[in-house]
Amino acid sequence: MKKIINAVEKVEDQMIEGMVKAYPQYVKKLDCGNVVVRADKKEGKVALISGGGSGHEPAHGGFVGKGMLDAAVAGAVFTSPTPDQIYEGIKAIATDKGVLMVVKNYTGDVMNFEMAAEMAEMEGIKVAHVVTNDDVAVEDSTWTTGRRGVAGTVFVHKIAGAKAETGAELEEVQAVAQKVIDNVRTMGMAIKPCIVPAAGTPGFELGEDEMEIGIGIHGEPGTHREALRPADEIVDMLLEKILADIDYNGSEVAVMVNGCGATPLMELFIVNNRVADVLAEKGIKVYKTFVGEYMTSIEMEGFSISLLRLDDEMKELLDAEADTPAFKA
Amino acid sequence: MKKIINAVEKVEDQMIEGMVKAYPQYVKKLDCGNVVVRADKKEGKVALISGGGSGHEPAHGGFVGKGMLDAAVAGAVFTSPTPDQIYEGIKAIATDKGVLMVVKNYTGDVMNFEMAAEMAEMEGIKVAHVVTNDDVAVEDSTWTTGRRGVAGTVFVHKIAGAKAETGAELEEVQAVAQKVIDNVRTMGMAIKPCIVPAAGTPGFELGEDEMEIGIGIHGEPGTHREALRPADEIVDMLLEKILADIDYNGSEVAVMVNGCGATPLMELFIVNNRVADVLAEKGIKVYKTFVGEYMTSIEMEGFSISLLRLDDEMKELLDAEADTPAFKA
Repeated sequence: MKKIINAVEKVEDQMIEGMVKAYPQYVKKLDCGNVVVRADKKEGKVALISGGGSGHEPAHGGFVGKGMLDAAVAGAVFTSPTPDQIYEGIKAIATDKGVLMVVKNYTGDVMNFEMAAEMAEMEGIKVAHVVTNDDVAVEDSTWTTGRRGVAGTVFVHKIAGAKAETGAELEEVQAVAQKVIDNVRTMGMAIKPCIVPAAGTPGFELGEDEMEIGIGIHGEPGTHREALRPADEIVDMLLEKILADIDYNGSEVAVMVNGCGATPLMELFIVNNRVADVLAEKGIKVYKTFVGEYMTSIEMEGFSISLLRLDDEMKELLDAEADTPAFKA
Repeated sequence: MKKIINAVEKVEDQMIEGMVKAYPQYVKKLDCGNVVVRADKKEGKVALISGGGSGHEPAHGGFVGKGMLDAAVAGAVFTSPTPDQIYEGIKAIATDKGVLMVVKNYTGDVMNFEMAAEMAEMEGIKVAHVVTNDDVAVEDSTWTTGRRGVAGTVFVHKIAGAKAETGAELEEVQAVAQKVIDNVRTMGMAIKPCIVPAAGTPGFELGEDEMEIGIGIHGEPGTHREALRPADEIVDMLLEKILADIDYNGSEVAVMVNGCGATPLMELFIVNNRVADVLAEKGIKVYKTFVGEYMTSIEMEGFSISLLRLDDEMKELLDAEADTPAFKA
């Protein structure tokens, strides 16, 4: 294992410390594990919390700030944070308007966030939640019943976060978050695995000429493994499955071409070149495109494509001001 | 060579096409090779142009937009653009106030940008230039006489770009660009090489336990190769050389922890954790920190640290609005 770290057992703590030291104008850390909250608590709005295992940076701490999240809770690498940690995060950001939890659909995350919500509700805090499940690759997976929540989650942070800034009620913020979930689909692939520091060896092996199609954000298997093909053919394969899942005909979409952590931007732009062409051919209008690393798997090399079918409300909220370390609009 | 591409000979073109299709609100492409310019030409200000070989994404096309560059010229991977291409870029953005070229110190780049400037001056366009040389690692290199221009160049784009937006004259924009160059220092390292697509094999080899200290942004050798050490010790080694080069005592600095293309954010934050601690110990105040991929070497894994010693003018210009695909302020 060749990594730029100090010690396996310090990876998560030193990473979060390094993030907080980089962005004191945006975030501060609570004294209960790796929970970061907005540097200045914003009252009078619904507060958003998200999180999950570490290893998905900039998710989720990088999205804490104006117009997105109020708190992000990070467990050990690829491991759900504990209910206690999530509960502390909820308490720190709770306002009279309540708290919305944005949870990616992984069994451990869903269970722990729900337990934290129960603890908070016993203290009189209003809590609602949504579960993202945008990955069209597989129905169930190693760690999930139902579809996995992957990069499309970032659109939920952005759009529900913007709605919360308008002063909307908890039910309204939850409703728009659910609308994003209902309209976003993602699929990914990888050509190189990542190594969880505490494990020390890759989570899976790929031959020099192989790729994994439909991979999850922890390197969980996808639909199948096959010989590496040209970028355009890979894009066609992923888009075919995404476009078959809901009706994108005649719609306007936001596109996210998301790198898995070690994918050079060069390759992501080559991917987007084909994504844009295919959508144009099919008469699907691209409203806005995001190319970069939003939801990673440490140093996995690969990408995912997310398409969000937009309406006027989502467009307006997508464009609204966001000021966070990793996402500005 | 395992890459997500279509064909080696199409890498640069499809990458730039994919970038332009992602960001039509920011950039458009000229019909003379891979030259991108602001989607809406801005009159009444000094126009900035930069560029170099491809492979450094998001540099330089990702920095075209309000408050930074007006044009970016991309040659083949790690190869200077031709004088003709640069000349076309200059012509497309030239205003009555003139054009400032920001050139990284590599022999081919300097020669070709200077030839392009001569061509433009014969057409009556006012052109000035600065040469960035922030890398403290080595005095000369494979491709350079004098120090190399590396990630610190992005601070020149930001600060000189902001100055140009104020309507300042060419000499003033050039002067502040030079002030940044005089005050910024960088040093980098790598644990994994990159592969130039047309070459098909890594530019250098490193053992499973080795790192290269002082590496350049094309994988050129640095000061030495040694056994991989903990992140904190590597940071100390790089900072020692940076801090010895100019007097940072009692000053305020901007920090950039730049990933080389395949470095997970997790590692960059662990690096910043130490950078912040060392600067605090030495009484050097951090004004603002940037952690991410700004000046890459395709899929090289490693990082560089840049420190910019600030004065009030540079602080104000660093904070001024920038709206580009890869840098927003």
